[in-house]
Amino acid sequence: MAQDSYNFSAGPAMLPSEVKLQAIEELGRNGRDGFSVIEISHRSDRFLGILEDTEHRLRRLLSVPDDYKILFVSGGASMQFSMIPYNFLNNGDSADFIVSGYWSEKAAKEAAKCGRANLIFDGSSDGFKTLPNPQDIVCDPKSRYLHYCSNETIHGLEFTDVPKGSIPVVCDASSNILSKPIGVDRHSMVYAGAQKNIGPSGISVVVIKDEFMKSALPNRLAYMDYRLLAETLSMPFTPNTWGIFLVGLVCEWIESQGGTVAMEERNSLKSGLIYDVIDESREFYLGHAVEDFRSRMNITFKLEREEMEVSFLKEAELNGLHGLKGHRSIGGIRASMYNAFPVEGAERLAEFMREFRLKHS
Amino acid sequence: MAQDSYNFSAGPAMLPSEVKLQAIEELGRNGRDGFSVIEISHRSDRFLGILEDTEHRLRRLLSVPDDYKILFVSGGASMQFSMIPYNFLNNGDSADFIVSGYWSEKAAKEAAKCGRANLIFDGSSDGFKTLPNPQDIVCDPKSRYLHYCSNETIHGLEFTDVPKGSIPVVCDASSNILSKPIGVDRHSMVYAGAQKNIGPSGISVVVIKDEFMKSALPNRLAYMDYRLLAETLSMPFTPNTWGIFLVGLVCEWIESQGGTVAMEERNSLKSGLIYDVIDESREFYLGHAVEDFRSRMNITFKLEREEMEVSFLKEAELNGLHGLKGHRSIGGIRASMYNAFPVEGAERLAEFMREFRLKHS
Repeated sequence: MAQDSYNFSAGPAMLPSEVKLQAIEELGRNGRDGFSVIEISHRSDRFLGILEDTEHRLRRLLSVPDDYKILFVSGGASMQFSMIPYNFLNNGDSADFIVSGYWSEKAAKEAAKCGRANLIFDGSSDGFKTLPNPQDIVCDPKSRYLHYCSNETIHGLEFTDVPKGSIPVVCDASSNILSKPIGVDRHSMVYAGAQKNIGPSGISVVVIKDEFMKSALPNRLAYMDYRLLAETLSMPFTPNTWGIFLVGLVCEWIESQGGTVAMEERNSLKSGLIYDVIDESREFYLGHAVEDFRSRMNITFKLEREEMEVSFLKEAELNGLHGLKGHRSIGGIRASMYNAFPVEGAERLAEFMREFRLKHS
Repeated sequence: MAQDSYNFSAGPAMLPSEVKLQAIEELGRNGRDGFSVIEISHRSDRFLGILEDTEHRLRRLLSVPDDYKILFVSGGASMQFSMIPYNFLNNGDSADFIVSGYWSEKAAKEAAKCGRANLIFDGSSDGFKTLPNPQDIVCDPKSRYLHYCSNETIHGLEFTDVPKGSIPVVCDASSNILSKPIGVDRHSMVYAGAQKNIGPSGISVVVIKDEFMKSALPNRLAYMDYRLLAETLSMPFTPNTWGIFLVGLVCEWIESQGGTVAMEERNSLKSGLIYDVIDESREFYLGHAVEDFRSRMNITFKLEREEMEVSFLKEAELNGLHGLKGHRSIGGIRASMYNAFPVEGAERLAEFMREFRLKHS
């Protein structure tokens, strides 16, 4: 279905239109047909059913083994940046970090408040254009865990495989969870803020292996305690009920579309359309990431003539292509196209980029 | 406007129908008329405008002095139970607690993980039926703050005045914020999970005096750092944008209804209708709270013959009166009627209670 406008927001990002229609219907309940999930108790049978259903859908979609818990936590990935070291690093402890962009760098800095953050890869010197090769990853066997970010939203870099760590591997998958099969079983923990591929902002999904969880420090503050969350089905206190409801609807939608394998095909197709235009442009468009590590979620590029970026963004808006401005930290252009983003939007952007180049070359 | 069904949920609780209609309209935006606030960047001009507008409305409605910040935090009141001691109690430090029910007891237990929790009033011995008189409150001058809960949702107790502390006073106002004028200027901090009187679950409002905030411990984890939240207009990371949007709509609705003074009149009227039925019932209905401290938000009572409570709840449901079951920790009946709850619903419940008594006396 063709639209007039496309929303390339990096997050909070667009939701599937089917999900929005269901959310509208839900908000419209008027008592005769029950009350809306946004205004009922989190202990009600209806909400407990939604919670269980959402957990099951995520378990299927992500192929989560039985010895992992799925937790819903209010807050986003930044909450996890604080919560993970708070649970796993005592003063003398260290954790290993692959610093491959803005977000993994933030995670490492935050962890340094609780223990030592070993940067076993640091891509900052070349402006975060590349990722380590699996064979180059060497962990400190004494470190409590290895942390990496599977897709750097701002720099547009994406791991094609899980880094092999001799220690528990923890993944921030905020911007590519459910966009492809990710191999949860090769991690001790995978977490994601929902606002890009799974739902609205203000809610995160944490998938954590029982064995790893058991190694967490004791006597944590309740709000930052994975074990307490696990023991109480994510509800030691009221969770973000509306957020969880939307996550469930998005999961249902992904299942109806064919699951993560279908998502991967569609996401390859969409991002491929734009990378093709960049590659054929003879450096009119300059991709940021090294080719092997290009993200399928966030395509980042500059224009050869930087002063032309303002016109690019302006003309794009006039053509119904919104939210393409790059993050303030690196500038340029960024096209974010998560699961819910339609193929037609990628086609329209590719067409626009070709026309813009012809007009301005 | 008469309805068929009324929602007495203690929280997440009902939203004003006008707010739900606006939320539905917002979710229905289709690109031609802009994108929905749930799927745009928190750094966009539109969202920044919503954030600013919501802050201004809260400042007016709560009469917040200039030397206080208003922060929006993902998570609910329980997040603050952890976050306050984490920011203000070092190992040797103490804080004073008025323990007047389930929630203030939880807050005190959580604080004891960071320092010493002095219980300067403890109503647990009489089953939380009463509150301290202002003249009986004596704080330890060395304590960092005095914490109290202005309305105990589960036990149905409400302070009629702010306890006078010689030390900074911190109030959990989750269940009666905006239900009446509350005197923010007599506190160093007032906080509230939104899910009862202000919006959906998963978002809290924190009003904090600059002077108190400055006394917080240094080097806090980012996710639990009031100063960082204040410096970044509540956005060191993505907030719960949809939650903040709804809080703004609820504030707009309260302003349109005449503000907190009008809310107080309406809430007195509603709760009065039910307390009248309890008082005239010759102990057929037994109110839980001592009369002077009865909550206008949560009316808790038992039936003289406890076995009759099941029939009461069943017949109430058949009469369109939902969510009246008391909290599992104390049983009985609880009618929660926050700002958004209509007067007609209270009238219907009063009528039902009279009829039920006639039928079963």
